[in-house]
Amino acid sequence: MFSAMKFVKGALFLIDQRRLPLEEIWLECRDLEAVAVAIEDMVIRGAPAIGCAAAYGLALDALAASRNGGTWDDYKVRFHNGIARLAQTRPTAVNLFYALDHMRELGAKQASVRPMAQAAEDLVKLAGDLADADINTCKAIGAHGAKLAEGRKLRILTHCNTGSLATAGYGTALGVIRALHAAGQVELVYADETRPYLQGSRLTAFELDSEGIPYKVIADSAAAYLMQKKQVDLVIVGADRIAANGDTANKIGTYALAVQCHYHGIPFYVAAPLATFDATLNGGAEIPVEERSADEIRFTAGRQMTPLNAAVYNPSFDVTPALLISGLITEVGVLRAPYREAISEVLHNSN
Amino acid sequence: MFSAMKFVKGALFLIDQRRLPLEEIWLECRDLEAVAVAIEDMVIRGAPAIGCAAAYGLALDALAASRNGGTWDDYKVRFHNGIARLAQTRPTAVNLFYALDHMRELGAKQASVRPMAQAAEDLVKLAGDLADADINTCKAIGAHGAKLAEGRKLRILTHCNTGSLATAGYGTALGVIRALHAAGQVELVYADETRPYLQGSRLTAFELDSEGIPYKVIADSAAAYLMQKKQVDLVIVGADRIAANGDTANKIGTYALAVQCHYHGIPFYVAAPLATFDATLNGGAEIPVEERSADEIRFTAGRQMTPLNAAVYNPSFDVTPALLISGLITEVGVLRAPYREAISEVLHNSN
Repeated sequence: MFSAMKFVKGALFLIDQRRLPLEEIWLECRDLEAVAVAIEDMVIRGAPAIGCAAAYGLALDALAASRNGGTWDDYKVRFHNGIARLAQTRPTAVNLFYALDHMRELGAKQASVRPMAQAAEDLVKLAGDLADADINTCKAIGAHGAKLAEGRKLRILTHCNTGSLATAGYGTALGVIRALHAAGQVELVYADETRPYLQGSRLTAFELDSEGIPYKVIADSAAAYLMQKKQVDLVIVGADRIAANGDTANKIGTYALAVQCHYHGIPFYVAAPLATFDATLNGGAEIPVEERSADEIRFTAGRQMTPLNAAVYNPSFDVTPALLISGLITEVGVLRAPYREAISEVLHNSN
Repeated sequence: MFSAMKFVKGALFLIDQRRLPLEEIWLECRDLEAVAVAIEDMVIRGAPAIGCAAAYGLALDALAASRNGGTWDDYKVRFHNGIARLAQTRPTAVNLFYALDHMRELGAKQASVRPMAQAAEDLVKLAGDLADADINTCKAIGAHGAKLAEGRKLRILTHCNTGSLATAGYGTALGVIRALHAAGQVELVYADETRPYLQGSRLTAFELDSEGIPYKVIADSAAAYLMQKKQVDLVIVGADRIAANGDTANKIGTYALAVQCHYHGIPFYVAAPLATFDATLNGGAEIPVEERSADEIRFTAGRQMTPLNAAVYNPSFDVTPALLISGLITEVGVLRAPYREAISEVLHNSN
């Protein structure tokens, strides 16, 4: 199983996902700012992975500060500035804020007289615990999702990358596919290439290829044609943020798939940890949708693909209304409509 | 208005559409085989443009043969071999076969004793007439389509390229947009980039940019999100072949758009000349759908974007059932459901 990040001797190593699958280059981040920029520039992406990387970024900052000695109190302001910096990197995925909240809570428990070295160690440990917990969560999601096959061999369509590279390891939607494959229940995975960033053709195909899971890469707009030809049994995607009513923000193109599933009578599942749920948002309209650079559309593989300075609209995410979702696969089980009640109950129990 | 082809002094010049919008390179085709390869390799594409280029290819062949003197009878077998070669280039667009049928008919009228030089001149003239007729047809399609605005300013979404580059000139769906723009009724055109070949970002954006028509390029999978946000008033696409019942084959992703329009209550129009209708096919299931090379997905701008030899499924077209089509915009007016009757009537009247 591939991992997107390694924390070794006071540095965070991130595999540069912009260069996969052609090159496996590990980027060394020695301070918080380097981690923030890596998140902004999509060296690392995927909602759970962003959260883990941000936690490690904050831990790196505490470690650096601890080398000067002093107490938590000397560091506190810088700690909160660090959180603010990391919180600015990507607006849509809530896992980022979830991870930062856990770090902030731990920070609040550091007595002002406590030596910085000890506080920093605590933060490093928490970042590692969050990553470990994410892997276990993904495995639980996979186990719950795998039950959906009910013994059949499935032709599954997925979008973007939700695998080891998008999490601390194993994956959410791709974790379910992994678990299904281990149970011998995957006939074929259709991987949407996922424009404009091609996370599907570059990253998901890379993971499926590495693990020997049978797959075919398709243009995003071919998904509907496959459904029309009855070649898709199930669609599973990940999530960047899920509102209290089940409305789900995920990579642009997810909503399109949900509509196609609705029209063609195909189950549409979202796989995500409880950390992706944002109970503070009443519905999907409140989820901030990041618009990314026009150059993601203008240039592909470094080559200009539109007229110079072509006008572009490049929303990076869309919001799928809960009514189009067959179920939310979480680490505590598959949630079903009515989602507001189901989500409220599991979030209450998990606190 | 840009033209995709020029026939000058016994050679067909095609603008190499694979290199647009970065470079405007004209490729000189001096014989039929060069034209056939240019069609196969997508130097030129777009259903009406393929038909015109094929007619010119056949004319080139007759011109070459005429240099040896002789009569039509000496050439006849080669003529039919030439038609067979051109017919193999692309299977889906029926305009190719329409143009070749016209050439074949003219060939059948050449008396066996007639000098080749005269016969060749006739074929050159017919190829030119077919191209001229295509431009006039496109203008008529544009005029009929422009009435759909009913005085409103429209936000129009289109797919692939259906403009001057896809026809002998002016365009089908893009011809309607051109006519609407001339009437001051275009607020904004959303151009799907149209993976995998990017005809939208490379060619449609190039044409819209050149003509000062306001546009934005979007990832194909963002279309549904725009519709959800009520930012699209109308979708217009072209066609590669339309069956007797109105089922329409067009660039992959067209069917996806039609389903999205249906779900969002947005009119979905197809603009095409009568030459695109194939009354010999009862329904869309009979239209041959071309599957193109996996490398169109594996490589973008020459750079590998998937694992080496990744499995790929790359259908180049899909078929939209007539029931999802609001109207078929032709040179004789806008056809409405029930399509079988409407199509039968106009094809009967046009013969």
